[in-house]
Amino acid sequence: MRSVHFTAESTTDGVVERDFTVGEIPGVLWSPVSGPDRAPLVLLGHGGGTHKRWPAMTGRARLLVTRCGFHVACVDAPGHGDRPRTPHDEREIAALYRAREAGEPEGPIVVRYNAHLADRAVREWRATLDALQELPEIGADGPVGYFGLNMATAIGVPLTAAEPRITAAVFGQHWPDALAETARRITVPVEFALQWDDEHIPREAGLALFDAFASKEKTLHANAGGHKELPRFEAESAVRFFARHLTRQPSA
Amino acid sequence: MRSVHFTAESTTDGVVERDFTVGEIPGVLWSPVSGPDRAPLVLLGHGGGTHKRWPAMTGRARLLVTRCGFHVACVDAPGHGDRPRTPHDEREIAALYRAREAGEPEGPIVVRYNAHLADRAVREWRATLDALQELPEIGADGPVGYFGLNMATAIGVPLTAAEPRITAAVFGQHWPDALAETARRITVPVEFALQWDDEHIPREAGLALFDAFASKEKTLHANAGGHKELPRFEAESAVRFFARHLTRQPSA
Repeated sequence: MRSVHFTAESTTDGVVERDFTVGEIPGVLWSPVSGPDRAPLVLLGHGGGTHKRWPAMTGRARLLVTRCGFHVACVDAPGHGDRPRTPHDEREIAALYRAREAGEPEGPIVVRYNAHLADRAVREWRATLDALQELPEIGADGPVGYFGLNMATAIGVPLTAAEPRITAAVFGQHWPDALAETARRITVPVEFALQWDDEHIPREAGLALFDAFASKEKTLHANAGGHKELPRFEAESAVRFFARHLTRQPSA
Repeated sequence: MRSVHFTAESTTDGVVERDFTVGEIPGVLWSPVSGPDRAPLVLLGHGGGTHKRWPAMTGRARLLVTRCGFHVACVDAPGHGDRPRTPHDEREIAALYRAREAGEPEGPIVVRYNAHLADRAVREWRATLDALQELPEIGADGPVGYFGLNMATAIGVPLTAAEPRITAAVFGQHWPDALAETARRITVPVEFALQWDDEHIPREAGLALFDAFASKEKTLHANAGGHKELPRFEAESAVRFFARHLTRQPSA
């Protein structure tokens, strides 16, 4: 088993940010500055074509740290960020750009490529989680959440289905094709975001993926607007979702 | 035009609660204790078979007052609470109970009876709003929201379509039959709640009503569970929605 190897550290506005590697996987761990007490961990997945320091990732991480005092980890998915692309990656990305320029549907290519990446990414996340839980400030028995939309839903659904340590998840904005069967095995609380007027993902497809989760507690947030117009307040909603589910509440 | 006539006042935990009448319409106005400054007003509608002091109404009102400093008004709908039932009300309520006992669909009766009540209730809400806006702590040009599910959506949709003073609304849990055409004239921000496993309102019917709103900013919150299992946290979400839309934000 590989351990976390820290390579850089900085602190900004109450948030400690540490670059790390676990084997060949580069990641960032955001943590509260204060206190040695253990705190819950949220695994943050980035979308296709972006990386672990994409502004949406940094923004969500800071919200989770400052509002909830959680630790937040994001790693580069295979072929993304600081990681090399394989010839297979290059072919799929070229196919996606060709479809986009020709005005053809992106769905079939994205679904198939994301499923390919998920096979590798799920193994990598599990190894990363093993390593992060060796840190004294996280620990092996603390609550763990997963937060990822788009490609990070294609990775997060099989990860959450396979990984009993994840007890709450925020997903969204993906086709059901390669995921619905796996989603039917997920029973932890889920918050799911989709865009009502998504130009890539048909409305019925998004609703079908939400419907597939077996979770007794699941919430759909559908907002008017296109694929890239997810409102900012959905990040705050996800933070409240994790605060509800990863924090031990006084019995109500 | 009729004025607000206050009949009782009490203060609990920072919230002033005043019973009032406007003509024959009895209502409650909840307000913050502090300050003579004007504050936004939320009109709160109760569901079928309940009344202005139903626990859900009191709870939502207190949240809006204590979190946002808003005024909140709820009036008894025709045939509800302290108001007399007409022979027509009695016949429809008897028909609803017969359907319920026979295990027949409630929808056709509820849709038709709510549409009947809405005709009267919209006129009453507009007269109540006229009167409330004469109060110096509310004023004639302040922001106004509407918050009502179930029967209160059947009333609130035509009210909001007719009433330019309402600039944000929370609706939900209703059939589209008598409402979708009117909803197409509504352009203010809308948050809409439905239950994914509602035993009375088919999923497609609830989604169709959400789809009908012409609002550029609209959000659907669909939660797993039956008709009466709307999660508590949706009330808090509605409060945040009104805080976003009725409070003048610093330009962002």
